[in-house]
Amino acid sequence: MIVKLAQDVPASPVDANGAQGVHIRLLIHRADGAPNFYMRQFTIAPGGCTPRHSHAWEHEVYVLRGQGAAVSADGETPLSPGRCVFVPGGEEHQFRNTGEGEMEFLCLVPKDSR
Amino acid sequence: MIVKLAQDVPASPVDANGAQGVHIRLLIHRADGAPNFYMRQFTIAPGGCTPRHSHAWEHEVYVLRGQGAAVSADGETPLSPGRCVFVPGGEEHQFRNTGEGEMEFLCLVPKDSR
Repeated sequence: MIVKLAQDVPASPVDANGAQGVHIRLLIHRADGAPNFYMRQFTIAPGGCTPRHSHAWEHEVYVLRGQGAAVSADGETPLSPGRCVFVPGGEEHQFRNTGEGEMEFLCLVPKDSR
Repeated sequence: MIVKLAQDVPASPVDANGAQGVHIRLLIHRADGAPNFYMRQFTIAPGGCTPRHSHAWEHEVYVLRGQGAAVSADGETPLSPGRCVFVPGGEEHQFRNTGEGEMEFLCLVPKDSR
């Protein structure tokens, strides 16, 4: 059993094309021995966003802190703590911080994602 | 894309042998089309606990609210919001609420779990 405090896990800037003010923490990942899926925590600065993109694998998201929006081809859905989001593989998506403080969420992906 | 408020998802009592004061919400599950792993939210009443058991699949846990402990064969580790826990498949484990209010955590499992 591995127990960590999320804020003790180093945060790395996300350099992907289109990412603005985004950091990622690999909370439970390959290095921990996770065999099937990985738990990452994202922090987005005010005004920031993740890339608007799509890929073959799904996301399972839970919002921890802040105010934001989930963007899809159909428009924007507001996000706040306690909201969860399922993004099926192949669907265009983006997460935006629309608040005045940081926005933080968990985003889990299957092991086959890159 | 599916967006839900976790507290709007119905909570069901967990009847497993050894569970005390435990409710589960299936936040992102088979019915949502999740293909590889499932996000569940557990609420444990003060003094309650999940079964002490082991099984072949892993858990990826993130504590949202309250005070508790993760129990393994090696003893107890305190839990509080922001702690995450990786329980490898085959390892004995239990989650206990040691606080005065409810304890709440996410617990994700691979699709092959029962």
